[in-house]
Amino acid sequence: MEASGSYFNEGGGQDGPFDRLREECGVFGVFGYEDAASLSYYGLHTLQHRGEESAGICTSDGQTFRYHRGMGLVKEVFDKDRLASLEGDRAIGHVRYSTSGDSRLANAQPLVFKTRDGDLAVATNGNIVNAPMLRRELEQKGSIFQTTSDTEVIAHLIARSESDFVTAAKDALRQLVGGFAFLILTNDKLIVASDTYGLRPIVMGRLGDAWVFSSESCAFDTIGADFVRAVEPGEMLVFDAMGYRSERFAPVAKRALCSMEFIYFSRPDSQLYDVNLHTARKRMGMRLAEEFPVEADLVSGVPDSSISAAIGYAEKAGIPYEMGMIKNKYSGRTFIQPSQELREQGVKMKLSAVRSVVEGKRVVLIDDSIVRGTTSRRIVKMLRDAGALEVHLRIASPPFKNPCFYGIDTPTSDDLVAFTHTVEQICELTGADSLAFLSQPGMIDAIGGAFGKEASGGLCLACFDNDYPTPLGYSAKMTSCGC
Amino acid sequence: MEASGSYFNEGGGQDGPFDRLREECGVFGVFGYEDAASLSYYGLHTLQHRGEESAGICTSDGQTFRYHRGMGLVKEVFDKDRLASLEGDRAIGHVRYSTSGDSRLANAQPLVFKTRDGDLAVATNGNIVNAPMLRRELEQKGSIFQTTSDTEVIAHLIARSESDFVTAAKDALRQLVGGFAFLILTNDKLIVASDTYGLRPIVMGRLGDAWVFSSESCAFDTIGADFVRAVEPGEMLVFDAMGYRSERFAPVAKRALCSMEFIYFSRPDSQLYDVNLHTARKRMGMRLAEEFPVEADLVSGVPDSSISAAIGYAEKAGIPYEMGMIKNKYSGRTFIQPSQELREQGVKMKLSAVRSVVEGKRVVLIDDSIVRGTTSRRIVKMLRDAGALEVHLRIASPPFKNPCFYGIDTPTSDDLVAFTHTVEQICELTGADSLAFLSQPGMIDAIGGAFGKEASGGLCLACFDNDYPTPLGYSAKMTSCGC
Amino acid sequence: MEASGSYFNEGGGQDGPFDRLREECGVFGVFGYEDAASLSYYGLHTLQHRGEESAGICTSDGQTFRYHRGMGLVKEVFDKDRLASLEGDRAIGHVRYSTSGDSRLANAQPLVFKTRDGDLAVATNGNIVNAPMLRRELEQKGSIFQTTSDTEVIAHLIARSESDFVTAAKDALRQLVGGFAFLILTNDKLIVASDTYGLRPIVMGRLGDAWVFSSESCAFDTIGADFVRAVEPGEMLVFDAMGYRSERFAPVAKRALCSMEFIYFSRPDSQLYDVNLHTARKRMGMRLAEEFPVEADLVSGVPDSSISAAIGYAEKAGIPYEMGMIKNKYSGRTFIQPSQELREQGVKMKLSAVRSVVEGKRVVLIDDSIVRGTTSRRIVKMLRDAGALEVHLRIASPPFKNPCFYGIDTPTSDDLVAFTHTVEQICELTGADSLAFLSQPGMIDAIGGAFGKEASGGLCLACFDNDYPTPLGYSAKMTSCGC
Amino acid sequence: MEASGSYFNEGGGQDGPFDRLREECGVFGVFGYEDAASLSYYGLHTLQHRGEESAGICTSDGQTFRYHRGMGLVKEVFDKDRLASLEGDRAIGHVRYSTSGDSRLANAQPLVFKTRDGDLAVATNGNIVNAPMLRRELEQKGSIFQTTSDTEVIAHLIARSESDFVTAAKDALRQLVGGFAFLILTNDKLIVASDTYGLRPIVMGRLGDAWVFSSESCAFDTIGADFVRAVEPGEMLVFDAMGYRSERFAPVAKRALCSMEFIYFSRPDSQLYDVNLHTARKRMGMRLAEEFPVEADLVSGVPDSSISAAIGYAEKAGIPYEMGMIKNKYSGRTFIQPSQELREQGVKMKLSAVRSVVEGKRVVLIDDSIVRGTTSRRIVKMLRDAGALEVHLRIASPPFKNPCFYGIDTPTSDDLVAFTHTVEQICELTGADSLAFLSQPGMIDAIGGAFGKEASGGLCLACFDNDYPTPLGYSAKMTSCGC
Repeated sequence: MEASGSYFNEGGGQDGPFDRLREECGVFGVFGYEDAASLSYYGLHTLQHRGEESAGICTSDGQTFRYHRGMGLVKEVFDKDRLASLEGDRAIGHVRYSTSGDSRLANAQPLVFKTRDGDLAVATNGNIVNAPMLRRELEQKGSIFQTTSDTEVIAHLIARSESDFVTAAKDALRQLVGGFAFLILTNDKLIVASDTYGLRPIVMGRLGDAWVFSSESCAFDTIGADFVRAVEPGEMLVFDAMGYRSERFAPVAKRALCSMEFIYFSRPDSQLYDVNLHTARKRMGMRLAEEFPVEADLVSGVPDSSISAAIGYAEKAGIPYEMGMIKNKYSGRTFIQPSQELREQGVKMKLSAVRSVVEGKRVVLIDDSIVRGTTSRRIVKMLRDAGALEVHLRIASPPFKNPCFYGIDTPTSDDLVAFTHTVEQICELTGADSLAFLSQPGMIDAIGGAFGKEASGGLCLACFDNDYPTPLGYSAKMTSCGC
Repeated sequence: MEASGSYFNEGGGQDGPFDRLREECGVFGVFGYEDAASLSYYGLHTLQHRGEESAGICTSDGQTFRYHRGMGLVKEVFDKDRLASLEGDRAIGHVRYSTSGDSRLANAQPLVFKTRDGDLAVATNGNIVNAPMLRRELEQKGSIFQTTSDTEVIAHLIARSESDFVTAAKDALRQLVGGFAFLILTNDKLIVASDTYGLRPIVMGRLGDAWVFSSESCAFDTIGADFVRAVEPGEMLVFDAMGYRSERFAPVAKRALCSMEFIYFSRPDSQLYDVNLHTARKRMGMRLAEEFPVEADLVSGVPDSSISAAIGYAEKAGIPYEMGMIKNKYSGRTFIQPSQELREQGVKMKLSAVRSVVEGKRVVLIDDSIVRGTTSRRIVKMLRDAGALEVHLRIASPPFKNPCFYGIDTPTSDDLVAFTHTVEQICELTGADSLAFLSQPGMIDAIGGAFGKEASGGLCLACFDNDYPTPLGYSAKMTSCGC
Repeated sequence: MEASGSYFNEGGGQDGPFDRLREECGVFGVFGYEDAASLSYYGLHTLQHRGEESAGICTSDGQTFRYHRGMGLVKEVFDKDRLASLEGDRAIGHVRYSTSGDSRLANAQPLVFKTRDGDLAVATNGNIVNAPMLRRELEQKGSIFQTTSDTEVIAHLIARSESDFVTAAKDALRQLVGGFAFLILTNDKLIVASDTYGLRPIVMGRLGDAWVFSSESCAFDTIGADFVRAVEPGEMLVFDAMGYRSERFAPVAKRALCSMEFIYFSRPDSQLYDVNLHTARKRMGMRLAEEFPVEADLVSGVPDSSISAAIGYAEKAGIPYEMGMIKNKYSGRTFIQPSQELREQGVKMKLSAVRSVVEGKRVVLIDDSIVRGTTSRRIVKMLRDAGALEVHLRIASPPFKNPCFYGIDTPTSDDLVAFTHTVEQICELTGADSLAFLSQPGMIDAIGGAFGKEASGGLCLACFDNDYPTPLGYSAKMTSCGC
Repeated sequence: MEASGSYFNEGGGQDGPFDRLREECGVFGVFGYEDAASLSYYGLHTLQHRGEESAGICTSDGQTFRYHRGMGLVKEVFDKDRLASLEGDRAIGHVRYSTSGDSRLANAQPLVFKTRDGDLAVATNGNIVNAPMLRRELEQKGSIFQTTSDTEVIAHLIARSESDFVTAAKDALRQLVGGFAFLILTNDKLIVASDTYGLRPIVMGRLGDAWVFSSESCAFDTIGADFVRAVEPGEMLVFDAMGYRSERFAPVAKRALCSMEFIYFSRPDSQLYDVNLHTARKRMGMRLAEEFPVEADLVSGVPDSSISAAIGYAEKAGIPYEMGMIKNKYSGRTFIQPSQELREQGVKMKLSAVRSVVEGKRVVLIDDSIVRGTTSRRIVKMLRDAGALEVHLRIASPPFKNPCFYGIDTPTSDDLVAFTHTVEQICELTGADSLAFLSQPGMIDAIGGAFGKEASGGLCLACFDNDYPTPLGYSAKMTSCGC
């Protein structure tokens, strides 16, 4: 067991520019189920794609906190004995992605605090835009911070309040600006809250007499729980032995659910409001085929995230869907990256093109988004090296032009190829024969359900159209996840 | 570092009946490439699906053997330093599946021996039917065995021969009955051999001036090598500093390549002779749609192995392909299995049905095969629990009725549901609304290529039609992999 | 990497009554040496006997803190890469004993905090008697505690002060009651402080231009540094780029250095003021021989702590010193304890009697102290089982009757056999033929040096004579170490 | 779990010249005790000083072998579950020292083999001088070796014999030349054997109805067993369900027990024939004081091995014994060695001089032996740096001039300082004020007991007087341990 790191030396650490948007975090909670830790284990395992860097569970039996956190996958952090030791009928858990190169154990959640009113644990997904300002104010008053995580701010705000715990939590939440979902556990209460725009998803479900909470509904299917509803923007739910009540910590604002959850992040079997993700993605692919058809021999998707859209494109276009690219499912953190020399000789790490499928063929390649453009260029080259005659790139979302301030780890605009280049330029850069992006109205329409009906779809589209739902005028524009 | 086990206490260890066919092994070899170990690492990583239990690489620089083996995935067994220490321009590597509950480190390959003529390393995929008999004879003469692996037999046969090494190897191979692919390394030679029926696949490729060998061609794509050809049944290739020569250690027999490689084992991006696996599986799905159509709202496949066939079925039937089931890609060896109680409450480990996709729908579910039937029953129930109105099971291969003696770990006939039950009975047992299996001629036809032209397709179909290519009359019928 | 534990569930965890006094902690500091971390590593390694449970080092290069802490021995917690990553020319380090069953990683020191004024790290040896009261006050004002360690109190007192850092530290130290030695690091200063009675030792040394600090002088010998002097009771030394200054945070009190440091804790090669420990212990053995002679064939000591006294006894009494008992130096944390059954059959874990030495002999056995008496009984039985004719127990310190409140983990008086029994009763209980304790004046006289000259020797003798140097009237009498 | 190494690349690996003789190995066996594995665990733990590199236990319940081996200390290799899984009432175990840089797991003992007659396990201490020759012969006949260990030779000799097992073992033992103690286990028998000169010690003991065997008697004290007798030179004991019988596999030869066992290797609480080791060493120190007295203020020993002799010297010379040097008991394998720079600045790894003891004093320093002389020079310098006025080196054994071929890892003569230099030259080289070695007759006399009565003491003194008890005329003179 160890704890280490260059504690206060934030930032840095990015080993080379990445070219995928990276997951932020996932949270999971239980209230009223005898073996809450095991349920959390299976729930977090289902949310693993939202964060592979660390995992943690904190339980309470109404009297005592027990917790365990560690670096790695859920299955690596917990073993049977460890899980069994986490007694209690309520729990909150967390999986976390490394952001800003700062993947220290000390930042692994749930964070656990000892306050005047007793124990307090917090798990978050998202980013608090005004956290640096709030933090400075608290430190001026003599608060000591243990982590570099935004999440710690809310604990100090609560601890310093002179009101009762629920009022203190409400007051604290009201002071936060940003996109976030919170699970806050004490020995007698569990609080669930969503930011005022509902930027980051959090849903509630029912398993017998117990309540469960999750960043995504897919975790409910895994544990056999029923989906009840999404937590509303600005809503704070308080669970205790008597039942629960719903309060608003802020007046109703315009809903602005992160559109990247639909495009890339959430698992295809999750459901956001009344929309299944695989189905939405398939519809985006179909719409893309309508908007930007092309004559070709086969359609392929970049695995895994673009498969649904690729199947939709193929179905609508009447072109066969084939497995033109394949991803090695065993790759992962501990994998040894090939040397530059090996890479130049053609050693692939994770994705490879299937020569026997694409050789001599005109290929439509579907991807979900383009961030820096480097991956797209590599993939197009791979297909050509494998003998593809033509490669037509079709992106199942609009051009990604603006950084996210609500929990997604993105480069600044200068490194977003769609901000600095026209579509024609990007096409040339990637080496594709043609390139097209799904239109914004087309995307909203394809997502459909509750979102298709609202103007702007009830979605945050800031990464596409620069229309950020919250004020951003704070000292530090953090472009990464704050959890 | 440790080595342990109840060494000579073979068998047992199966923790409950499994219901998937299990991979046997994968081999990879290099001759004449400066950093042969790294190439083997990436090659074996690509063959990881053929064996997740142990991995190993043995290299030679022409004078000294260096090797490392361990339990776990390729990326777990090797780190950078370890890999760098394996110097040499020739290498053989192995990934192994646990068979017969005997997953000891001592059986991890490549096996390395010290003989009168120097060092000898062997890596195999497959099973030697007459190994127990040969072993008994060798022990009678005073040979000491270190492992319970069939592979050791060939080393002792070579060591005891009074001929030169190549002749000794040829004589040894001639004595073996079964389905196997061998890589045999000494400090100056590399021998590659396939059994007389070509039951287990092994292919050769070219990377610049170097030669590479693999159980599947997909490993060549990963390392940027060109596919040259399959090693022929009964062929023995000898590589040394002067080049290579091809010899036959046995007269030409009827080719009988394992049909399960097409149905289930090989990666979709591999190529067996002139047939791409994804394409063959998609054609099997199309053929299945022709043979056994059904009215339905959507088609889904059991991930990952049945996706290609499901897409084919959907395309041919004109029914939308949807993601009705999903598999958690993070499951694996160290995952804590849910307790019986949690399982009854609906906690799923690996596969789950997507309610928002299947609810109220008539589903065609494609699976590649049925072994015991228990998994099929569980999957059908999952879909119904998730609200599917109808579930029509379509199997993309003929009924699996007979055990394999050539390296696939199968139950005995008594536990093969297709041996003990009629199709109608199986349908009832699984709870499906209808069930159908692809016909044997349909399958051969769909595989097509070189195989579609030969009578019986040049395939081993023993598991379907009981026509075993080799004699089986030895004391112990081993139904598992001998590597 | 992981962090875990039943965080706020303090106490408990003692697996069976122990019968040795247990070390509290050791601290080590460096100011102005280029590779401060390596120096700390060797320093802490030398102090390892003061705490085997966790180890940590925090460094500063004047701008950034870097730290690493872990459970285990110094050599287990740090590897080369880890050590190399701890850059900086100043450092504080800590080794910690498990006390109160609460050996969580979170309590491993140095504790690191982020305050308004920047980074702050603290390492302590000792116990703050009024910590629970101070903690409650701080929590009432909204402070959040991360650990159960007393040490955190001083950080909060400093953070809440409105004065500059040095004044704040001075004010904070003034509020503490107890026995403690502190090392406090910021990016530009290092503060070294001893409690007002000098209860816990801390010494300063010189290595070239650098300053070094240690719980014991033996660490200076290891790193080639020169012993300068002990930090005085109530003294606070402040080191920065300009040099250092000495201040008093409290008026001069009577010195009362822990006498158990002389008897048991400090390494024999350490020096407290002008007294070498081995020599002092040997003199105690000689004095014991004068006070309580006995006719016998050989003298033995309980290894390792009583060897010096035994050699002194033998030399003075003119009886040969022999190795009648031996300790297995490989025992330790991960050793599997023998089952009750094996223990009854005579399996020994750590200590064993040497039959060929003691058989048929009259043995004088020297031990440093008796706590509960169970170990003494076991040892006497061991000697008799090995054939000793007579066993005369001689204890090289007075009867241990009262718990320590200054950092030594002792049972309460009810479990101290010398509190509940007379010497005659203890003798009977242990089964010895005779028993005698060194007198208190004899002990002070034997320690000698600076201590022999002061009345009561300038020593804390509370465990023997119930005369505690500080007030104890606080809510919780903590009988263990607070670091 | 892993197995690795440059398998057949023997030799090398010595990281810099060592300057201590290194332990060879320790063996422990049990016949007829229900939980034989636990007994072996405690036995091997007591023999840990004979080998810290790997440990292993193989048990039999009469039908099945179970074993476990690993790199590291006994307490590191075995945990509770592992130990519990080793069922059976008979066991053999082994601890091994790294010799010749070849500390591979594959060489860890007990070695386990599968032969025609069933399972066979072997544990050895010592070296077989003619092993390379026997090995070449066996390989010529087609035997395959798995290890580079001499021990494997006996298994192949037994496996190739056409006689029954006991006869085969006897024939095999007769062919071996060298110094060795063997434990050989099958499912129904346990064979214990000593070489014809009794070079390597092995003793038998009794625990209730069970028999136990050990390299040293101290292991019997630990488990509560009674010492019975030493196994005689050339004796082979065969234990089975019926009892045991003693046979000779070779005619009686002159006893020649390794004298270094008395000087350095065996634990002070062990007994060789009728001699306790601590007592013998103390007598050597006394004799040394008689032979080479010197005027001085104090006597110290190099810990730990020279303490007994130092106490003897002090007692006889009437000079006080003091702790002038101390050894850090926490040093060990994973400890980070100080950089050259730190070493020059005075950082010590393991041994340090105690300034407050030696400053201004004339010191007699007792060491057990001098091998290369580098350690002696370093120690003398340490004492001088710590202020010693004079340093008189006294060695409690004769000059060590000739390499050992019977299991002790020694340099060749050219690196033995006593072979290449006169005593005066060595004295100058070490920087001591005077130097003297115990005389050979003095040593024999001091060892005393059974040994004092025989001419040449019944000891192997080859390292001192070049009189090797066995022929050495074999191809490779192996100067290290063959186990």
